[in-house]
Amino acid sequence: MIVIMSHKATESQINEIINFIEESGFKTHVSKGKERTIIGVIGDDRYLLKDVLRAKVGVEDVVSILKPFKLVSREFREDDTIINIKNTAIGGDNFSVIAGPCSIESKEQVIETAWAVKEAGADILRGGAFKPRTSPYSFQGLGVKGLEYLALAGEETGLPVISEALSPTALDIVAEFVDIIQIGARNMQNFTLLTKAGKSSKPVFLKRGMMSKIEEFLLAAEYVLLEKNCEKSCDVILCERGIRTFETYTRNTLDISAVPLIKKLSHLPIFIDPSHASGVRDLVRPLSLAALAVGADGVMVEVHPEPEKALSDGAQSLTIPMFKKMMGDIKALKKVFVKHEDN
Amino acid sequence: MIVIMSHKATESQINEIINFIEESGFKTHVSKGKERTIIGVIGDDRYLLKDVLRAKVGVEDVVSILKPFKLVSREFREDDTIINIKNTAIGGDNFSVIAGPCSIESKEQVIETAWAVKEAGADILRGGAFKPRTSPYSFQGLGVKGLEYLALAGEETGLPVISEALSPTALDIVAEFVDIIQIGARNMQNFTLLTKAGKSSKPVFLKRGMMSKIEEFLLAAEYVLLEKNCEKSCDVILCERGIRTFETYTRNTLDISAVPLIKKLSHLPIFIDPSHASGVRDLVRPLSLAALAVGADGVMVEVHPEPEKALSDGAQSLTIPMFKKMMGDIKALKKVFVKHEDN
Amino acid sequence: MIVIMSHKATESQINEIINFIEESGFKTHVSKGKERTIIGVIGDDRYLLKDVLRAKVGVEDVVSILKPFKLVSREFREDDTIINIKNTAIGGDNFSVIAGPCSIESKEQVIETAWAVKEAGADILRGGAFKPRTSPYSFQGLGVKGLEYLALAGEETGLPVISEALSPTALDIVAEFVDIIQIGARNMQNFTLLTKAGKSSKPVFLKRGMMSKIEEFLLAAEYVLLEKNCEKSCDVILCERGIRTFETYTRNTLDISAVPLIKKLSHLPIFIDPSHASGVRDLVRPLSLAALAVGADGVMVEVHPEPEKALSDGAQSLTIPMFKKMMGDIKALKKVFVKHEDN
Amino acid sequence: MIVIMSHKATESQINEIINFIEESGFKTHVSKGKERTIIGVIGDDRYLLKDVLRAKVGVEDVVSILKPFKLVSREFREDDTIINIKNTAIGGDNFSVIAGPCSIESKEQVIETAWAVKEAGADILRGGAFKPRTSPYSFQGLGVKGLEYLALAGEETGLPVISEALSPTALDIVAEFVDIIQIGARNMQNFTLLTKAGKSSKPVFLKRGMMSKIEEFLLAAEYVLLEKNCEKSCDVILCERGIRTFETYTRNTLDISAVPLIKKLSHLPIFIDPSHASGVRDLVRPLSLAALAVGADGVMVEVHPEPEKALSDGAQSLTIPMFKKMMGDIKALKKVFVKHEDN
Repeated sequence: MIVIMSHKATESQINEIINFIEESGFKTHVSKGKERTIIGVIGDDRYLLKDVLRAKVGVEDVVSILKPFKLVSREFREDDTIINIKNTAIGGDNFSVIAGPCSIESKEQVIETAWAVKEAGADILRGGAFKPRTSPYSFQGLGVKGLEYLALAGEETGLPVISEALSPTALDIVAEFVDIIQIGARNMQNFTLLTKAGKSSKPVFLKRGMMSKIEEFLLAAEYVLLEKNCEKSCDVILCERGIRTFETYTRNTLDISAVPLIKKLSHLPIFIDPSHASGVRDLVRPLSLAALAVGADGVMVEVHPEPEKALSDGAQSLTIPMFKKMMGDIKALKKVFVKHEDN
Repeated sequence: MIVIMSHKATESQINEIINFIEESGFKTHVSKGKERTIIGVIGDDRYLLKDVLRAKVGVEDVVSILKPFKLVSREFREDDTIINIKNTAIGGDNFSVIAGPCSIESKEQVIETAWAVKEAGADILRGGAFKPRTSPYSFQGLGVKGLEYLALAGEETGLPVISEALSPTALDIVAEFVDIIQIGARNMQNFTLLTKAGKSSKPVFLKRGMMSKIEEFLLAAEYVLLEKNCEKSCDVILCERGIRTFETYTRNTLDISAVPLIKKLSHLPIFIDPSHASGVRDLVRPLSLAALAVGADGVMVEVHPEPEKALSDGAQSLTIPMFKKMMGDIKALKKVFVKHEDN
Repeated sequence: MIVIMSHKATESQINEIINFIEESGFKTHVSKGKERTIIGVIGDDRYLLKDVLRAKVGVEDVVSILKPFKLVSREFREDDTIINIKNTAIGGDNFSVIAGPCSIESKEQVIETAWAVKEAGADILRGGAFKPRTSPYSFQGLGVKGLEYLALAGEETGLPVISEALSPTALDIVAEFVDIIQIGARNMQNFTLLTKAGKSSKPVFLKRGMMSKIEEFLLAAEYVLLEKNCEKSCDVILCERGIRTFETYTRNTLDISAVPLIKKLSHLPIFIDPSHASGVRDLVRPLSLAALAVGADGVMVEVHPEPEKALSDGAQSLTIPMFKKMMGDIKALKKVFVKHEDN
Repeated sequence: MIVIMSHKATESQINEIINFIEESGFKTHVSKGKERTIIGVIGDDRYLLKDVLRAKVGVEDVVSILKPFKLVSREFREDDTIINIKNTAIGGDNFSVIAGPCSIESKEQVIETAWAVKEAGADILRGGAFKPRTSPYSFQGLGVKGLEYLALAGEETGLPVISEALSPTALDIVAEFVDIIQIGARNMQNFTLLTKAGKSSKPVFLKRGMMSKIEEFLLAAEYVLLEKNCEKSCDVILCERGIRTFETYTRNTLDISAVPLIKKLSHLPIFIDPSHASGVRDLVRPLSLAALAVGADGVMVEVHPEPEKALSDGAQSLTIPMFKKMMGDIKALKKVFVKHEDN
């Protein structure tokens, strides 16, 4: 950490900062320039309160040198984290496809979709039972009934299943039925929920908030990992699903650069959700291919047998023939495209 | 609602849409232009699933005519909502000042601050006991102990108190100690928490998410109001606290235009939080004066007897002399500035 | 166009709007709902002043149905525009690579780079002679001298060359030396420059402004096309180069979804510039592969023989070995990846 | 400037950086932490190429300590710059109102408006003759004819006049007719135009780009000041006019915090343009009052005798009675509100 003193800072203000840092257990390294004095903090200051320094009189700015996260970082663990779920593996050299309806609407709908996506080559089945909706007047999901249908579809097809938990209380219920617990974008900084999820034995699929910086995203994953025994099961999967920008032709703006960036910063798998990112059915296939080419560990896409009857997100759901076509392209691309070669 | 058909839409696709709308209980009004057919939906279509229409084959876009919220709207209630809390009133012709430390750190700190802000003219005391922090390594608040200190400070000074609830479970505890329950920006779309807050008998102070549109902000308030008996106690207070933009000199960008806009759209009181919006102590006074001039119902500011020792947000906390000065300016301005004249 | 009247609009205000529209040569289609009256405008209202309607008393909103651009649109020209430049072609089934240094720094530097990128398989040589720089204290480019070196490198290697014009006056000079005129992101709405570029016989490479919506981007291209004889040479190439968002780990956020979206809306070729979008050398290769996978017509990348000595943008420039490796991957990917199949 | 070396940087890479900095004429100050080495640059490194350092092998990041601008800064000139134009003064303790139509449409229109705004208390008359328009199909302004009408209105009423120049060539023409040359938001980084404007003897009114950070805004002003003889006439006026964000209820988001921030960083006057910032007529008055309260040096507002007939921006133009009312409020507020007391 580097503390930049104001050009008006007095000797005694500078000394006070130095004393404070040293009393907190760090060494300092002072550099007096012509216009500014800067104070370097030596030691692992990740947990030193940057806020406290910034509030002190005479301080102009405080610059972090170390990244604020630890367990999620490549420095902590050099190799890619690989997560085994039933008979499939996420991360490493795999490119996994999670597919299924936005909302679970009926037993038939989810089972029909499950068989169809399995046949086309999907690895994991998704389906929402509790839905976070911007408007209280929108469809809020089937709840526990939906989870039962999803689990049933998983059993019948042998596909692992994933569904979202909206609150700490609901998380226990969701965890009973699914193989992977999803934390949605709106809850990325619901710290109570993150901590609770970390205490579950199930892997966590964490979506980036639409308003969140990559650094905040990784810190949210750090909240989960802190509760897990990372030596044994560092099983968090990250998912970029579009950030909010000024552009209005798409629902959000897919931040595809986040994939290679996160690959450098973290050992965790990183997915892309092109359905929510774009909100437009026709963009899902090209964006999924781009995800593979850019080095992502997988995609999560919405598929519905009859999107025009979907109770949510129909406009961005693939039909089954569209999904099949996409899977064909992914298979072809996978053959020639060796992932990560040397990213 | 207006459905805009694609220029390639067939007769039968158009008819299918018309049938769907009519079967849903609405009338339609079809206008065939040279390049596009558009279908008007007649009736209160606020609750008709826009998503469903958008997903149908042949539909290019769906445009809402009615605003998607109802209970929060000026059309629902023409007069300003006024909320009485102990011996103070929020809304209408009042301009209220909520002040206090970001985090409650000790009994002495909160009581000292309470007396100081009261003396300077503050109306309500704030203090955080449960803190949502981006990093799991930051100070997370004193918890229930903090709530006890806050309640004590409220009793001693006679000031109503406000504090934030982070989860549905914690909300009951917070509600025991405070006069107003705060829902923070990161939880603006924590729908479980909103619904729970609506069930409490205490007024709710709802902060705008840093990446939330005004429309989503009002829909979040609608979630709370739906649980309240709005005829009796429509007691939600809105608070604009800065949105996230590309500018980095300030922590967030205060969207001051949200105040007159929300005054037009809604009957609920709207506050400004210049401390979080700017993150810079020196900006709090000018932004508070601007809040008064633009027609806000109040401000929420952070005050700390020794900001350089604060465990959180010290850099944006006013010292007590700074707060006194600000209150002096507010008083002077209030005298000549008749709020809302005819906004 | 649809005019949505306020719920307080009087009969006479509504009639005034109807008369205004009809006097402007359009037909109207009025739909009186319970809460709002809406007026449909029938005819090609692309050129009707939306602003004028929006300003009228009683009008709540005006919604466009037709896209505001024409010559750039797929509806105007269904087939992909293909632009032949010397012995290379841009658009259609091609995937072109434009490469070279950010700034032209010396004759040797540009010639050395030209041969290296040509050998690796690049199609076109780039190099900046006039540089738009945020700070007046930064290197501003070699000017005409730079253009001479670039033209020389083009002649020697047989590669077509591209360089940026910063002002209408400079455009004539640039056009003398290059095969393609570049308009930079900061000038995307420099309308005088766009019009001037349209009058040149050279193709125009137009970069998206970092804060410009796709619609504004296409309207900027429309400014250029309006001056060109589109039947003969509709030769504008679009380039997405990252938009400004709140994320700070990358210089800008590459909006990769813009590619398939623009492919749907327009017949013009669309490139990606991963160097400026990310600002990070290591991201250029994965983002270029993603560009190919998503259906882009090419990429523009910065290459420098010694990036650590570059006078501008060194941090995002590829070394020559890195560029060679990227070109190898592109070739492999091209073989199996049939572009656009059915986008 | 501080250079942060990667944790993998070798001794020789570190030495190379140190040598480079010292050969460039600076001293260095090296601090070897456990995880990173950081190199402080001592001396006025404002003009040292940060880019060059960032591109070097082994460098992780480069952090500026000094602000990159100089002539615009408060450190360069401590007192507020006051600009005298005819019989009015901008800056210091003044709060100036610039008013008039968006576009000049006819001699009558501009003269009628001029008298009306003068009578209501405006200080300066605005009017657009050359209009930058997103669409090539929108009204582009009356050109030189418009400037003649504007100058005439200025002469008749005695009001100084301001109008926008769109290109370096047009700037000479505009400068002939006006008292203040405006550079619009879209041209804030049209560096050729900025340099040309700096060479004129007329004051320059520079609008912040809707995509521009405050730092870039001040650097754009630095471009102008570099051409002016700042000892004699440091006459640039800054204007915040809203930045682009995700919010869509307003045309842009007024960044009101920019005012007190720029007051701290710079000696130049800073205005607010609430008409363009909001795009909504009803917001102009409250935002203007907020501008005064926050410490701005003035506002620029659009006024039209018949906004519903305006050829551009009618929806955000005040009627004359609305303008009069606003001026009344401003006068009342001015009396009690002593600007800048101690900002």
